[in-house]
Amino acid sequence: AALVRHRFRRSVRRHCILRDTRGPAEATRPRTRRCTAPETRRRSAMMDENECHDPNRMESSAPSPASATGAKPKKKKRRQSDVERTYQKKTQHEHVLLRPDTYVGSTQLVTDEMWILDPESGNIVRRSITYVPALLKIFDEILVNAADNKQRDPTQDTIRVDISREDNRISVMNNGSGIPVVKHREHDMYVPTMIFGHLLTGSNFDDDERKTTGGRNGYGAKLANIFSTKFTIETVDANEGKKFKQTFTENMLQPGSPRITAVKEGTKEYTKIEFEPDLARFHMTSLDNDTYRLLCRRVYDIAACSQMYGGRKLKVYLNGTRLAIKTFEDYVKLHDGLEPPVAFGRIEDRWEVGVSYSDGQPRQLSYVNAIATTKGGHHVNAIVDQVVARLQKTLKKKNKGQDVKPHLIKQHLSIYVNCLIENPAFDSQTKETLVTRKANFGSTPTLPEAMLKRIEKSEIVQTILSYAAFKQQKELNRKGGAKRA
Amino acid sequence: AALVRHRFRRSVRRHCILRDTRGPAEATRPRTRRCTAPETRRRSAMMDENECHDPNRMESSAPSPASATGAKPKKKKRRQSDVERTYQKKTQHEHVLLRPDTYVGSTQLVTDEMWILDPESGNIVRRSITYVPALLKIFDEILVNAADNKQRDPTQDTIRVDISREDNRISVMNNGSGIPVVKHREHDMYVPTMIFGHLLTGSNFDDDERKTTGGRNGYGAKLANIFSTKFTIETVDANEGKKFKQTFTENMLQPGSPRITAVKEGTKEYTKIEFEPDLARFHMTSLDNDTYRLLCRRVYDIAACSQMYGGRKLKVYLNGTRLAIKTFEDYVKLHDGLEPPVAFGRIEDRWEVGVSYSDGQPRQLSYVNAIATTKGGHHVNAIVDQVVARLQKTLKKKNKGQDVKPHLIKQHLSIYVNCLIENPAFDSQTKETLVTRKANFGSTPTLPEAMLKRIEKSEIVQTILSYAAFKQQKELNRKGGAKRA
Repeated sequence: AALVRHRFRRSVRRHCILRDTRGPAEATRPRTRRCTAPETRRRSAMMDENECHDPNRMESSAPSPASATGAKPKKKKRRQSDVERTYQKKTQHEHVLLRPDTYVGSTQLVTDEMWILDPESGNIVRRSITYVPALLKIFDEILVNAADNKQRDPTQDTIRVDISREDNRISVMNNGSGIPVVKHREHDMYVPTMIFGHLLTGSNFDDDERKTTGGRNGYGAKLANIFSTKFTIETVDANEGKKFKQTFTENMLQPGSPRITAVKEGTKEYTKIEFEPDLARFHMTSLDNDTYRLLCRRVYDIAACSQMYGGRKLKVYLNGTRLAIKTFEDYVKLHDGLEPPVAFGRIEDRWEVGVSYSDGQPRQLSYVNAIATTKGGHHVNAIVDQVVARLQKTLKKKNKGQDVKPHLIKQHLSIYVNCLIENPAFDSQTKETLVTRKANFGSTPTLPEAMLKRIEKSEIVQTILSYAAFKQQKELNRKGGAKRA
Repeated sequence: AALVRHRFRRSVRRHCILRDTRGPAEATRPRTRRCTAPETRRRSAMMDENECHDPNRMESSAPSPASATGAKPKKKKRRQSDVERTYQKKTQHEHVLLRPDTYVGSTQLVTDEMWILDPESGNIVRRSITYVPALLKIFDEILVNAADNKQRDPTQDTIRVDISREDNRISVMNNGSGIPVVKHREHDMYVPTMIFGHLLTGSNFDDDERKTTGGRNGYGAKLANIFSTKFTIETVDANEGKKFKQTFTENMLQPGSPRITAVKEGTKEYTKIEFEPDLARFHMTSLDNDTYRLLCRRVYDIAACSQMYGGRKLKVYLNGTRLAIKTFEDYVKLHDGLEPPVAFGRIEDRWEVGVSYSDGQPRQLSYVNAIATTKGGHHVNAIVDQVVARLQKTLKKKNKGQDVKPHLIKQHLSIYVNCLIENPAFDSQTKETLVTRKANFGSTPTLPEAMLKRIEKSEIVQTILSYAAFKQQKELNRKGGAKRA
C-alpha cells in the first residue's frame, strides 16, 4: 500500500485513491512523530532568506498561472501556495542540520561492536556499545586536524586532548604551526574565521599537491562547529606576533567577534579548538561512558599512528596524562582479542604492517593518514593479496597438491595496517573504506621476503588446512542432498 | 617523514626542515600528477565569483597587514597573495565536482564482487567486476525516483529504462504523476528546473510526513545532472495542460531554456529523464560490459522490490522488454549462488523476508524503499536477531544442553529482506547501510511462528551443529599451544 501522506494533492480524485489504498488498521494507527524541538527553537535564525514563511501568505489562494497563460482552468486546482510549501530550497547550513547523514553520519544512537578504551586495564577492548556516529565524527575531524598539522610542521611535538564530561566540553590543542592571523582579501575576514566558520573552505583543495593528511573535504572542522552549541578557536601566529580567539555559538550561527592580541616575540605557535557538542541533536544528555571510552580510543589511535611521522617525537596527552604508546605494533598488542602479529614490518616509511591468523572471520585494524578505516579498503587488500598469493603456494604443497580457495585463506587472516596515502579517496564522508587504487597510493607496500617467510612458518597455515579439510568433508556429506550450488 | 609539499611556507627555516626530512630517494622520485584536463577545460565557467584567479595579482607582493596594525615586521614574511592561494572557498557546485566522494562515492574504477545481470542466462550472478561507484549512484538516483513516484501515485503502472551503450545515453520514464509545470514564486523558476537543476531543493524535506520513499536528501537528481554532459527533463502536467522540456549541458552549468507546450486534455502524465553520463569524470570511455550489467541488475531490483507496492501492477521495461519478475521470492531465487529461502513470508504489507543457510559467511540481500543496502543494517539485524534467538533454543537442545554462540549462528544465515522504512537514515549518501533504529521503522517485522518453525526444521540447524562441533574440537586441540585468547 502506498502510505505517503500528501500535503500537496493534485486533485480530489487522486486524493481518494490514496486514501482507499490504506487498510483500516493502517488508517487508525497513530504515528509517532519525531521530536522537532531543537529545529523549531532555532528556526528563525536558520531561515533561508529566499524562503517564504509568512503563514498568511501560505494559506491564501494565489492567482492561477494557468488562466494567466490562457490554458483552460480545471475544476479542482492546486493552490499556488502549495507549490512553495512542497518544493523547497535549503541553505547548506540548514541542510547539514536537516540531513546530517550525508555529512557526519547518523545522529541517532547506534548499538554496535566497537573498539573502546577499557579505563581499568588500559587495554583496547571490543564491546557492544551505544553511541552516535555523528558525534564520533565531529570529534574525529578536530582530532585528525591536529595530527595532520604534525605533517605540515614536523617540529610539532605535542597534542593535548581534554574531555571534560561534567561540562560537556572537549578541547584539542597542537603546538605545530598556527593559522595565519591575517585577513583574507577576497572574503574579507580573518583566515581562522573563514576556515572554521564557513562551509567549503580550506587549504586542502589543490590535488596537485600530493598530501598524506586526513582532512581534504572542506567540511571537517565546520561540521564540528555546526554540531556544537559553543565552538572556540584559539591560535598563535608568531610571524604576525598575534594571537587570535573567536567563539561561535548556536551551531555556528552566531559568530562572536574575533579577539586579536599581540604576543611576545618568540611565543610558540599553537592551535586550540574547544567545543561543546550539541547533545540534544545527538539525542544524548551527557558524554556517557560508552561515548567517552570510544573518544579516548581515538586519541590512542592518533598516538599510535603518528609515531611513524618524521620530525620531533610527538607526545599525546589525554586529560593531562601522556599516552605511553611506543609503536603501532605495541598498539595492536594492546587490543584484547586481536591475535598478536606473527610478522610485522615497516615499509617505505609510510607503511607499518602486521599479519596474523583469525578465527574464521577476516579481521583488520587499519588506519589511513590516522583515520580509522573500520571497513578496510584497498590498502588492506594490497596486503591481503600478497599474503594470500604466497600462502596459496605453501598450502597447495601441504594439501596433497589441491588448491585452497583464496576466500578460505582470507577468512583466516588478521591484517594490521598503519599507512600514509596521498590524497586518499574514501567511500563517503564517514571514511570507513579507502577506495584509492593501489597505483595512486604514492608508495608501494611490497611485503619483505622475511615477513612472508615468517607468515609461511606460522600457525596460520595449520589453521587454514584444518578448516579446508572440514569444508571438504562437509561438501562430500552434502553431495546429493544439496538443493543448489 | 613528512611529505607534504608546501606552497605556503611560513619561513625559510621551516622550509629547510621540510626538505631535510625527505630522503634522497624521495626527493628525486618523480611523482605522477593526476590528469586534470576535464577540470581545466571547464574552469572558467565554474569559477567562484569570490575567487581571485588573476595570475598577475597572485604573484604581486601585497601590503603587509602587520605593519598596518603596528606589529613588528619580521625578516621573512609570507606574501599576502599566498594567503588567498592557500585558503580557498568553493561554491557547492565546484565542490561536488572536486570532492565527489562525499556526494556520490568514488569516481575511480573499483574492482569488487557485485551482483550483476548475466544476459545469457537471465540470472543474477555474483562476479568480480570493475565499475565506478559514482556512476552507479547517479543512475540509481534517477531510477529510485521513478520507483518512489509509484508510491506517490499508485495508478502509475509503467517504468521504462533504456540504456543505449552506443550513444552513452540513459533514459528513465515513469507514467505516474508529473511535476507541476508552474513557476515557483519564491525562486522565480519552473518547479522542474528548480528540483532538477539546483542543489538542495526538493519536496522531501518535511520529516513530519512519514514517507517510505528512497529520495530524501535534496541532492539526488541534481548529482546525476552535474555528472552528465547532457541532461534532459521532460514532464507532463495534465492539471495545467502543459508539457515541460529542458536540457542542461556541461555538468548542469549550462541550462537550456525550458520549452513549454500545450497538451490535449486527457493526456497521461509522465516524467522522463534522459542523460549522458560524463564518462571522462568516471575515467571511462564507454558504458562497458561490467557497468551495463550492473545497471541492468538495478532495474531488475526495482522490478522485484516494487511488486509489493499497492495500486496498479507495475510493469518495468528494460530496453523495450518487460521484465518477468513476479515476486521478491522469485527474484531471490534468480540469484546464482544464494541458497533459496527455507522460509519466506510477507509481514504487514511492508516486509518480504526470506531466511536460508550460508556457507560460513553471513549473507544478506536487502532493500529499503528499493535502495540496495549492500551492507545491511538494522532492518536485516531485526530479522537476524529473531532467527538467532529461536535457533539458540533449538540448538541448545540438540547440542547436549550446551549453548551455541550467536555469532556462530549468524555466520551460517542468509537473510533476504525487501522492506519499506519511514524516513530512512543511512550511514552515508551512498546508502549501503540502514541506520534507522527498529523503533522508527514505522512497522514491526515480527516473524510469523510458522516461518520460525520452518527454519527450525531446516538444514540450517545441522549446518550450524557440525560447525560448532568442529570449532569445539579445534579449541581443544589448540589449548595450551594458544598464545592468547
